[in-house]
Amino acid sequence: MGIEYDGTAYNGWQKQNVGTGIQSVIEDAVSGVADKKIDVICAGRTDSGVHAIGQVVHYDSTANRSEYEWQSGVNSLLPDDINVKWTKIINDDFHARFSAINRTYRYIILNRKVRSSLLRKRCWWVHQDINDSLMKECASNFIGKHDFSSFRASTCQASSPIREIYNLDVNRENEFVIITIKANAFLQKMVRNIVGSMVQVGRKEKETRWLMDAFKNKDRQSAGITAPPQGLCLVEVKYPKEFGISSINNYEIL
Amino acid sequence: MGIEYDGTAYNGWQKQNVGTGIQSVIEDAVSGVADKKIDVICAGRTDSGVHAIGQVVHYDSTANRSEYEWQSGVNSLLPDDINVKWTKIINDDFHARFSAINRTYRYIILNRKVRSSLLRKRCWWVHQDINDSLMKECASNFIGKHDFSSFRASTCQASSPIREIYNLDVNRENEFVIITIKANAFLQKMVRNIVGSMVQVGRKEKETRWLMDAFKNKDRQSAGITAPPQGLCLVEVKYPKEFGISSINNYEIL
Repeated sequence: MGIEYDGTAYNGWQKQNVGTGIQSVIEDAVSGVADKKIDVICAGRTDSGVHAIGQVVHYDSTANRSEYEWQSGVNSLLPDDINVKWTKIINDDFHARFSAINRTYRYIILNRKVRSSLLRKRCWWVHQDINDSLMKECASNFIGKHDFSSFRASTCQASSPIREIYNLDVNRENEFVIITIKANAFLQKMVRNIVGSMVQVGRKEKETRWLMDAFKNKDRQSAGITAPPQGLCLVEVKYPKEFGISSINNYEIL
Repeated sequence: MGIEYDGTAYNGWQKQNVGTGIQSVIEDAVSGVADKKIDVICAGRTDSGVHAIGQVVHYDSTANRSEYEWQSGVNSLLPDDINVKWTKIINDDFHARFSAINRTYRYIILNRKVRSSLLRKRCWWVHQDINDSLMKECASNFIGKHDFSSFRASTCQASSPIREIYNLDVNRENEFVIITIKANAFLQKMVRNIVGSMVQVGRKEKETRWLMDAFKNKDRQSAGITAPPQGLCLVEVKYPKEFGISSINNYEIL
């Protein structure tokens, strides 16, 4: 299933001791349609307050339901801040997390003097001037296969800090600075830690060189701040062509 | 002052017996900075659930505050779903409502099969196919000075039903249909009643001719449905050049 959600009200994807995880809410809805307890696995475990327009999940079920029945049934049981965008009955080879080739996240910064009430849950408001050329300069250094220890949350449980970034674009559109980042996979808080450090360079609090040194140090303490969650959105997950789900579009939604 | 707000939590602009009006919240903040009870007048009284990125208000005060002090003081007293975008100390000739030359509203329709959790408070979700060419055909008939009785709420208190529409654009952008409408002024629910009827034509429930007949009948019962409030946003109010506030930009915010 392709899933969209407004992460504002949730404590992230995973089941939580405190607060509600998006996973539990989707599992309840899917279990309701299947009439049996079902576990759901996602492509990318988003943090508290992070959004998705291109999350992908899978689950195993022997219930005899059509794609349409799953989709409309699950949507009817979900609250209005989570919804199923598409549904595909697929063979056992598919795994939402392990079959994924790459993930794309988008981070939106609102760069103007005053805050925005309409976008407060969707952007990081940065009121100081941001030089996006300096950010672009940083961006090019991240491309490729690297050790991202400097941009990894202390709670990250991944076995290796090596990830490969395929694209990291910084685009200014009027008062917005939009960062789009595609990698094979991400460490915990990796996007927000990269964005936070890049913004410090863009605000000229730090030099481009500082960020590159921090990167080489492979130490979280060397790098900069963590960008807040509400600016982040999981926009796309790509799978091998054979699964027939790689062509589904996620139109731009701010 | 230029004002932006997320109308979701409010019962519209005006002071309410039930629920909270945006006006009261702004008056409380302005009165707090002035240290005296102050009344605020706006350019366009939006309905419950309607948003604004280009609302303009004025108030009279003898308090000795700079533009910066008004702006930062009022913003610090406002909740996060309302904010001041700009502030200008101006002479007594200016009246937010009566000095306005024209107002522009934007209405956003999300036209796709599934609902959107991220945009649920910002769009009207229409899952049936909309033919935007048919809507454009309708749009051209509204341009000019007309009697808009067929698109006026029964509770509307305006003394005349005559309004002049300068522009009515219908644009499709992927899965969005965006309607932008500029007039000297609007009757209550006029934009939402026009949009609702046009969508009925776009969905082919009604013919273009039906809408033109309804228009000519000058009777609300003849025309169609009212589009829901969350898709509507007041984007701009124009004033004569002499006031020096006509050049302030409202960048596109979905």
